[in-house]
Amino acid sequence: MTRILIVGGVAGGASAAARARRMDEHAEIILFERGEFISFANCGLPYHIGGDIPSRDALLLQTPLSFKRRFNVEVRVFNEVVAIDRAARTVRVRDLARGEEYEERYDKLLLSPGAAPIRPPLPGIDTAGVYTLRNIPDMDRILAALTHEPPRHVTVVGGGFIGLEMMEALHQRGLSVTQLELSDQVMAPVDREMAAMLHERIREAGIDLRLRTGLNAIEAQPEGAAHRLLLQLGEGATLETDLLILAIGVKPETLLAAQAGLELGPRGGIKVDAAMRTSDPDIFAVGDAVEEVDFVTGDAALIPLAGPANRQGRIAADNMLGRAESYKKTQGTAICKVFDLAVASTGLNEKRLKQLGMAYEKVYVHPGSHAGYYPGAHPVSLKLLFAPDGRILGAQAVGKDGIDKRIDVLAVAQRAGMTVFDLQDLELTYAPPFGSAKDVINMAGFVASNHLKGDSPICHVSDVLALRPDQRVLDVRNPAELERLGAIPGAINIPLDELRGRLDELPKDKELIVSCQVGLRGHVASRMLQQHGFRVKNLSGGFKTWLMATAE
Amino acid sequence: MTRILIVGGVAGGASAAARARRMDEHAEIILFERGEFISFANCGLPYHIGGDIPSRDALLLQTPLSFKRRFNVEVRVFNEVVAIDRAARTVRVRDLARGEEYEERYDKLLLSPGAAPIRPPLPGIDTAGVYTLRNIPDMDRILAALTHEPPRHVTVVGGGFIGLEMMEALHQRGLSVTQLELSDQVMAPVDREMAAMLHERIREAGIDLRLRTGLNAIEAQPEGAAHRLLLQLGEGATLETDLLILAIGVKPETLLAAQAGLELGPRGGIKVDAAMRTSDPDIFAVGDAVEEVDFVTGDAALIPLAGPANRQGRIAADNMLGRAESYKKTQGTAICKVFDLAVASTGLNEKRLKQLGMAYEKVYVHPGSHAGYYPGAHPVSLKLLFAPDGRILGAQAVGKDGIDKRIDVLAVAQRAGMTVFDLQDLELTYAPPFGSAKDVINMAGFVASNHLKGDSPICHVSDVLALRPDQRVLDVRNPAELERLGAIPGAINIPLDELRGRLDELPKDKELIVSCQVGLRGHVASRMLQQHGFRVKNLSGGFKTWLMATAE
Repeated sequence: MTRILIVGGVAGGASAAARARRMDEHAEIILFERGEFISFANCGLPYHIGGDIPSRDALLLQTPLSFKRRFNVEVRVFNEVVAIDRAARTVRVRDLARGEEYEERYDKLLLSPGAAPIRPPLPGIDTAGVYTLRNIPDMDRILAALTHEPPRHVTVVGGGFIGLEMMEALHQRGLSVTQLELSDQVMAPVDREMAAMLHERIREAGIDLRLRTGLNAIEAQPEGAAHRLLLQLGEGATLETDLLILAIGVKPETLLAAQAGLELGPRGGIKVDAAMRTSDPDIFAVGDAVEEVDFVTGDAALIPLAGPANRQGRIAADNMLGRAESYKKTQGTAICKVFDLAVASTGLNEKRLKQLGMAYEKVYVHPGSHAGYYPGAHPVSLKLLFAPDGRILGAQAVGKDGIDKRIDVLAVAQRAGMTVFDLQDLELTYAPPFGSAKDVINMAGFVASNHLKGDSPICHVSDVLALRPDQRVLDVRNPAELERLGAIPGAINIPLDELRGRLDELPKDKELIVSCQVGLRGHVASRMLQQHGFRVKNLSGGFKTWLMATAE
Repeated sequence: MTRILIVGGVAGGASAAARARRMDEHAEIILFERGEFISFANCGLPYHIGGDIPSRDALLLQTPLSFKRRFNVEVRVFNEVVAIDRAARTVRVRDLARGEEYEERYDKLLLSPGAAPIRPPLPGIDTAGVYTLRNIPDMDRILAALTHEPPRHVTVVGGGFIGLEMMEALHQRGLSVTQLELSDQVMAPVDREMAAMLHERIREAGIDLRLRTGLNAIEAQPEGAAHRLLLQLGEGATLETDLLILAIGVKPETLLAAQAGLELGPRGGIKVDAAMRTSDPDIFAVGDAVEEVDFVTGDAALIPLAGPANRQGRIAADNMLGRAESYKKTQGTAICKVFDLAVASTGLNEKRLKQLGMAYEKVYVHPGSHAGYYPGAHPVSLKLLFAPDGRILGAQAVGKDGIDKRIDVLAVAQRAGMTVFDLQDLELTYAPPFGSAKDVINMAGFVASNHLKGDSPICHVSDVLALRPDQRVLDVRNPAELERLGAIPGAINIPLDELRGRLDELPKDKELIVSCQVGLRGHVASRMLQQHGFRVKNLSGGFKTWLMATAE
């Protein structure tokens, strides 16, 4: 009878326990959780704070009792595994309620300790009123603070998933919110021009979003002050606030593993192979604490997401019980709701491709989420990154509708090893309420393929911003559009439908950078001009991308 | 200078004209359309009738003038190509306005004549009040009839895409609607048990849906009768109605091609190769008039859908201009809105697999469209068909939310040659408003993989209906669920969470067919029982699938 011990009862740990029981009815399975709760809806916490999920109980997916009844797994909450004796194959457990320690023997040990919110050693970091959000008690504390001493103003530090979700949750509770982000954009998985749409939406909602703004220190204000906390933001700037949510990321919980001498990886997570096995053949690890293999680069990566954690738990359980299953690398597919927008991505972003020095191309498209003549369509702003041979490197999308679908499709295409040429041929569901005969994905495939084949070379906003003397921008929109929406400074304007008759107005000795609103008319114009002997490039994504890329 | 003539100005023809111009600024391109309109939103017609698309103009995507201005394509509406002289490479065109005929020379000819609604030679088929819907004039006629002589009752014949959309459109206009369908289900691309959810929803809306009901004859009623038409429905049954929409399918328009001696395929469409070239190297054909290659079987197929037509037009244009592009077979990915439900499919259905005698397996899952604890989740009822080696053969889904996304993902996976094992590893967007850490698609992959690996053998409703004496059904839901939702007759009921303690109540000499609500608890129970020495199969999709499969 195999004896399996599992450290950590959320996501990966809980998945592994359930799968292990299904695979082996006779194994002895004990799950240790140092907190009170197992298998809670981690990702739902901000939505309960914001009120979208009214019932706290809805977040508690399993209890020790339900887990025992259904899976015959012994769950010991408030029991923390504090040491591993690998030679003896035992763990030392601290019963936090009784304050006693005891040992348990294992045949296989699974570590699913997760990650902890980063708390930088700032002056005043332990001041009352500073919160992080990772688990149910964290949430309860925040809710208690919001309820019992209602703040007038709250500050969220960090513009990642939790930061964005908490910003929205607090706003939804009617609070005045400032969001601080050290970098020049929120939502690091996407590139800045894509995040620009989020910045606009967040500010439109009345949030005081401050980019390039770090938090240097936190001070408690004296009794009677207008606000309870004073934040030092650097360069002498200060901000008064009542409550602070720190959401600047997480770091893998590796102390137990490291103390046991298990190998850590270059990014500081527990090192595992494709079977989720650590450097000790009887010890497995999964979830936010482990390093994964990046799908595109093959490099070690920390990707703290629920989907991978759950699948890893399943795979680790199989392998602990003698099967041979492999975890298949991580693309980092992710999505976040920001008011009525969704932002999603998969694979690598441009920032990372640049860091890595990888050769890449990119295109932008902004087609409707479904047929434009059917009500309720919204633009899907999609950025597709691909290798010069067409291989998909990454994708990002922002919009109000159909964002999840498009990134899902691209995540599957990427995983399948498809190229941008293949995207042209994808046969996706189409009826007017759901899509278009030529879907967003097909359009991106067309544009990317046209570019790679040399049929319609594209350029980007960076090229326009660094315009050479032998280049001119030609805007082929209608004058009314330029007036209403703005235009690239210095552009010649000839509407597409007049262009054939006005070719003689164009400089033959210059390269023309053609721009329209989203890139479609620019493509038509480019093809036309090319064949009339002009040197041409089409601004990918048109003026809409220009606005995104040049937004503050 | 290449001279390209195009017959038919909608979907494939219009796409080809635009692409041809982009590829060759100097080609002469003439597009002939026997009707008044080119490039109209065919798929939007029912939605204008139903009022979702208020403006008729929204359906007119291009006009001859706009096409001329933008693409320098000469569009001749009301001009019908009536003959092709392949030897002389000319077409004979009838100017329908002037009643004159003339000839035009071509280098390349593209046929995009589309398909025509089937009008069976029933007695009374030409009676006033009988309509089909294929184009703008058809729509205008129906709208005129609805407006000027408002019917009290309308009948839609056929339960395909147009039939369903028209049923809903007429219902939305407040009309009393009967829908007749000759077969035992609407929406032929999916199997009957999946269509059962549509039947229920349609009847719930108050529609008089009559399956297995043909239309034998139409008679005009005498003046003063309560209704204008009398329908003979077979076996002496009659139905009085005021207006009849005939939507029983379309047949390819092949007369012109056939008279020119172009080869037709086994299904009666124009035969083309992957370059969209007919048996005449200078003549290409695209869209609803051509036979495509079925993605799964490789057989010829008629698949009249907008997506393939548009892509074919693009590919034909490239090939007419000397490029070498291939159309990559058709999966038949499709979707239809039926009130608040969506129904979608890709690949082959089970009916077809049976006809073809192909070896296949199937699973059903019903997970939520997103995390259950976040509001607004609805079940996605998904049927996945796959080969014994795991290759995806087809997929169907019905539900209120996220149906398009799941079928899109599966369409891409199928096209990429993925197996059900690969579906387990797909990394799809997850945040509570959008999905689950284990998405519907992952779940289907788990269930199918468990079955193929022999870990959790499944069976189906047909097995339960043909229960052998050595088999018993074990329902592992809670008694309250059986009472509230119903149960399979004769099933033993032991709730999953009590099962381990009550194994001695189960017959050791019988094979147990385990059932729960959707198949998940049944899987847990199956694994447990198997390892306690029982012979077990899990009813795929559980009692929910039972209800769908046994619905009238």
